[in-house]
Amino acid sequence: MRLTGLETPCLILDRQALERNAQRMTARYAGTGVALRPHMKSAKSIDVARIALAGNFGGITVSTLKEAEYFADHGIDDITYAVGIVPDKLPRIAALIGRGVRLSAIIDQIDVAREVGARAQAEGVVIDMLIELDSGERRAGLIAGTKGVVALGQALHELAGTNLRGVLTHAGNSYQCRSIEAIQQVAEAERLSAVTAAAQLRAAGLPCPVVSVGSTPTATHAVSLEGLSEMRCGVYMFGDVFQSEIFSCDLGDLAVSVLATVIGHRPEMNSALIDAGALALSKDRSTGAPDLPEDIGFGLVMDASGLRRIDGVRVGHVYQEHGMLVSDGAFPFDVLPVGTRVRVLPNHVCMTAAMHNTYRVVAGDSGHVLDSWQRVNGW
Amino acid sequence: MRLTGLETPCLILDRQALERNAQRMTARYAGTGVALRPHMKSAKSIDVARIALAGNFGGITVSTLKEAEYFADHGIDDITYAVGIVPDKLPRIAALIGRGVRLSAIIDQIDVAREVGARAQAEGVVIDMLIELDSGERRAGLIAGTKGVVALGQALHELAGTNLRGVLTHAGNSYQCRSIEAIQQVAEAERLSAVTAAAQLRAAGLPCPVVSVGSTPTATHAVSLEGLSEMRCGVYMFGDVFQSEIFSCDLGDLAVSVLATVIGHRPEMNSALIDAGALALSKDRSTGAPDLPEDIGFGLVMDASGLRRIDGVRVGHVYQEHGMLVSDGAFPFDVLPVGTRVRVLPNHVCMTAAMHNTYRVVAGDSGHVLDSWQRVNGW
Repeated sequence: MRLTGLETPCLILDRQALERNAQRMTARYAGTGVALRPHMKSAKSIDVARIALAGNFGGITVSTLKEAEYFADHGIDDITYAVGIVPDKLPRIAALIGRGVRLSAIIDQIDVAREVGARAQAEGVVIDMLIELDSGERRAGLIAGTKGVVALGQALHELAGTNLRGVLTHAGNSYQCRSIEAIQQVAEAERLSAVTAAAQLRAAGLPCPVVSVGSTPTATHAVSLEGLSEMRCGVYMFGDVFQSEIFSCDLGDLAVSVLATVIGHRPEMNSALIDAGALALSKDRSTGAPDLPEDIGFGLVMDASGLRRIDGVRVGHVYQEHGMLVSDGAFPFDVLPVGTRVRVLPNHVCMTAAMHNTYRVVAGDSGHVLDSWQRVNGW
Repeated sequence: MRLTGLETPCLILDRQALERNAQRMTARYAGTGVALRPHMKSAKSIDVARIALAGNFGGITVSTLKEAEYFADHGIDDITYAVGIVPDKLPRIAALIGRGVRLSAIIDQIDVAREVGARAQAEGVVIDMLIELDSGERRAGLIAGTKGVVALGQALHELAGTNLRGVLTHAGNSYQCRSIEAIQQVAEAERLSAVTAAAQLRAAGLPCPVVSVGSTPTATHAVSLEGLSEMRCGVYMFGDVFQSEIFSCDLGDLAVSVLATVIGHRPEMNSALIDAGALALSKDRSTGAPDLPEDIGFGLVMDASGLRRIDGVRVGHVYQEHGMLVSDGAFPFDVLPVGTRVRVLPNHVCMTAAMHNTYRVVAGDSGHVLDSWQRVNGW
């Protein structure tokens, strides 16, 4: 099928760009002793996972139990569920363990650990547990070096339903960085958090085989990997405009876009409408922070090949099913007559992709749709 | 099944609140001579449509062709597709007409009308067309009173593939209003736009049986309906916090919420985490505009019954799968221990509901899940 035969709006995935992005990150970690455990929360697709896992050990990270179940259905048997566990999630986790998946869960509270341990025991399983650390994001996790780390480690080690496997942190604060040097500092803080907590556990005679860190910016720019056992990251597979603005990739690396059709012109407003609005692009807009190179609104507008930018045009506003294209200069109506297909490069691909169930797979600018890959949305 | 047995996050629909909201709007238009044509873009569910259509004539409005096809599959045969038509959409529209659906499309450009007419003729159908008017939203549409209205009407009347049926406008700008008086003014501008254009067409000897307006705020507060034939609105069925802030409903009217579980405490940050983040709530946050009563972030937090607010607590920040609860005063950790279920009232329900495939249907605070209703997302 030709790209031009697709109904719009739809989600386009350039397999060549995906493969390049995956290979670049895999090559960066090959031979370092740090295992790359791709995070599948952005892609949510076994077809993408297979490309990301090529050359790696086969383990993944997920953000929902539905992802865990889906990837297990497709044969992946080493999964880290990287959202704090609560007892209510135990039946599904126990079912995954019962079918042979090595599933690791994360936790940062000793009282919850006791409840989880009791529920696991009641379910007849032992859950591998990682202590969640806060290395600067200020979302969840214990602070490395505090005594709570050892107390939680001791509890996880001793409880009948849990098995202490190590520590995990995520430098989500790297998204606030505006220079590679700043990212390197955050990466070092992320590493130090993990290795400090690991040293605490070991000094207390506790096991800590897993020392896990990761975010796409820190995975891309970290200088020292000393003491780490694994790196987790996900959005690097696709890239997005925001990631390109914080040095994770170039604009030319972006693998995912939304194909849309120009449906109207508003010359008196210097704007045009496309049939991709908030439901096709998400409402995750560029912050337009003064320290970012450019406010790209809800997306940058490219021609249908996805390779050439329509000069100065971006999605400035979204309604449910309309996107409003705006331009800093005179709007290029002649380049974008009604009916024209465009590709929108998303500001934040995790959110944009989540609005779709299917990737239409292309390779570069051949114009052919090679395949359709399903996503596993929901919980 | 009990509400407490549901996996979180999930979308909850209170059928009693939905029925009250639907009946209120239906009663408002009963006997006015203005037909209520519910917009299904928020609900995207035949089960919800049946409740909204009770006491009305049976026609609906949709925002995607997938909705049109889905509702046609469920027996609805009078559908207005209220996003500007382009020729590429013709095959699916022709198929709908071919199976007996009275489908009306909207348009605001004469050159596109000619292409649509030619494509319709090639497909062997005649499409009912409404002229889209801009009554103040500044998104799409012609300005009533300008000569373009008659020119487009003439073209639609004369083209072999199109049938002029009337005019349509949507006062989306009513969302910017901050008083009932302001909404009434916008409603009057919306009405005047439609009746002015209708008068133009009729003065030119053209037919204009349909004079269609609508948005939930204007449908709720319009004073004069003179000259109108139909009212379109959708979000009134569910309500949301934003609509409650602009006088479309009370907080107690809200029919849709997201059930979530508290998964962590951060006493040092006066906050807690729930397992509903950007993918469960959307990133459509409250603007926090100074002229709105309250910045509720990504949602207001209620107890599990959905009826009692947790004082001062809102979703202040979202990550992909984490929501961070914040509070103006001391965070009520004792009321919300880890594992507690809460209900989040969304800022903008159209976007929040779109993140889910299924409504879990309850009735008031009985705590029982009565049913599961599917949504038709996508395009």
